[in-house]
Amino acid sequence: MEKFELTILGCGSARPTLRHHPSAQAVNVRDKIFMVDCGEGAQHAFNRARLRFARLSGVFVSHLHGDHCLGLPGLISSLALMGRTAALHVYSPAGLEEVLRPLLAAFSPGIGYEVAFHVVDHRRPTVVYADRSVEIVAFPLSHRVPCVGYAFKEIAPLPHIRREMIDHYGIPTWAIAGIKQGGDWIAPDGTTVPHSLLTRPADKPRTYAYVSDTTPLAHVPEAVAGANLLYHEATYAHNLAATAHQRGHSTAHEAAQFALRAGAKRLVIGHFSARYDNEQPLLDEAQAVFAATTLAAEGLRVAVE
Amino acid sequence: MEKFELTILGCGSARPTLRHHPSAQAVNVRDKIFMVDCGEGAQHAFNRARLRFARLSGVFVSHLHGDHCLGLPGLISSLALMGRTAALHVYSPAGLEEVLRPLLAAFSPGIGYEVAFHVVDHRRPTVVYADRSVEIVAFPLSHRVPCVGYAFKEIAPLPHIRREMIDHYGIPTWAIAGIKQGGDWIAPDGTTVPHSLLTRPADKPRTYAYVSDTTPLAHVPEAVAGANLLYHEATYAHNLAATAHQRGHSTAHEAAQFALRAGAKRLVIGHFSARYDNEQPLLDEAQAVFAATTLAAEGLRVAVE
Repeated sequence: MEKFELTILGCGSARPTLRHHPSAQAVNVRDKIFMVDCGEGAQHAFNRARLRFARLSGVFVSHLHGDHCLGLPGLISSLALMGRTAALHVYSPAGLEEVLRPLLAAFSPGIGYEVAFHVVDHRRPTVVYADRSVEIVAFPLSHRVPCVGYAFKEIAPLPHIRREMIDHYGIPTWAIAGIKQGGDWIAPDGTTVPHSLLTRPADKPRTYAYVSDTTPLAHVPEAVAGANLLYHEATYAHNLAATAHQRGHSTAHEAAQFALRAGAKRLVIGHFSARYDNEQPLLDEAQAVFAATTLAAEGLRVAVE
Repeated sequence: MEKFELTILGCGSARPTLRHHPSAQAVNVRDKIFMVDCGEGAQHAFNRARLRFARLSGVFVSHLHGDHCLGLPGLISSLALMGRTAALHVYSPAGLEEVLRPLLAAFSPGIGYEVAFHVVDHRRPTVVYADRSVEIVAFPLSHRVPCVGYAFKEIAPLPHIRREMIDHYGIPTWAIAGIKQGGDWIAPDGTTVPHSLLTRPADKPRTYAYVSDTTPLAHVPEAVAGANLLYHEATYAHNLAATAHQRGHSTAHEAAQFALRAGAKRLVIGHFSARYDNEQPLLDEAQAVFAATTLAAEGLRVAVE
């Protein structure tokens, strides 16, 4: 399978602790890296995770709270110092560019690459990015300020070539790309060997969905349904459900219920409140509902599969 | 002696490395804490050094480059989440408030304390802060943008009471504060016991001086002369002197020469270029000129004495 991997860079909430950094993640799709949220220190965590800045293509910000985007000015400045020339695309609900431009002008004057801000509609699902490997869909969440989640939907991979059949029919190497794309093989004598005989079905395209700060969602967004991997905030345990909802957050129990309703294969919970010295109770609570739950941790890598 | 202590929170330069964080320090004077520069991640390092946010009184920024102040928005936001009510005073060359206010308005609306920005004159030495323990003098440095260093000058402590003389003359406890302040003791029978007989001289007031990004200074600022502890940037080794000066920096050799000229007792060098995987050559170079040199490191604590 092609590479499709999540690395947690920070999974704390806003109040600083010695255990966690604020929200940030790196999603590697076939060696192109997308950052999801960019709390303070994200560039440092990215570096520590031995990810390559040159592969960073865009940053997808869920909402304009400091613990989700205050790492951007430093990241942008550092990329300039590293000699970046490729544009950096930054996606977020409206308002980020207005806040950051004066800062960039003051601290990073004359940087050698373009920082392109893209405003994401926070009221309806939208495809915000697509290349030949992945399509990224932003979908509305329910927080105290406009907030979106992001679903990374892999573009259907090509079918697998059946090596033994290629050998059997003596098919030359130059013809294989065409067969992978769906073509039959027409031999020099005019015989047609159908595509279906020469290939095995492609791997099923995979989805990683990031559900940032939100009260429990009433409906599962279409882009999230059946996700191979789901990250869902679980700021509090369920005994603090009232506090959670009042502050625009979910409990571990609710994150697990959402994973269940979404038909997700695996759940990672994070955005832990500073009150927890130990997140085991959050894990226990989630696993009681959805067994395939993992606690996020800085540096954790999870394959999307 | 009263507490007077430096903690290094970050001693790298702008380009991120796995070894260092950008510039930030905490100076503890009699349990009031002053932050000096505030690079990204400073709040986390402050926390990790087990310093108490409630004791943080002000932030003294040397210049408006990102690696010296991008930790401020996160720090300000976190202090609000911790329920701070006391004002936070931020000192810097002109321009910082204009850049940060929109960010604070967006990310930290309605915080429960005042953030008071103070513009520091970068062209001449100025007392920017004074209380009964310490006077802080900003002095001009020579960098690519307006830049200042800061000297923390302890206010002369009171003389030590000679306990045996107090006992000898049967002086009551209530009279001791007055004697410490310089008074004589007048006994009930009218006899005068002079102050000098009842006290030993006070400890000599101490100075910590922070010399941030700068090309070598031609003259030692008066506030720095004879400093007990001097921090001086040493971005490069001396074989890169031309690069250093072109970029507004000093070499380890030059930092040590400055310490010598300043009559400092101890030197800490920092602001290391990302090119060094090991700063031992910088230390060797400095110690050849000024033996009492120490390499800065995140978490290093040095008493001013």
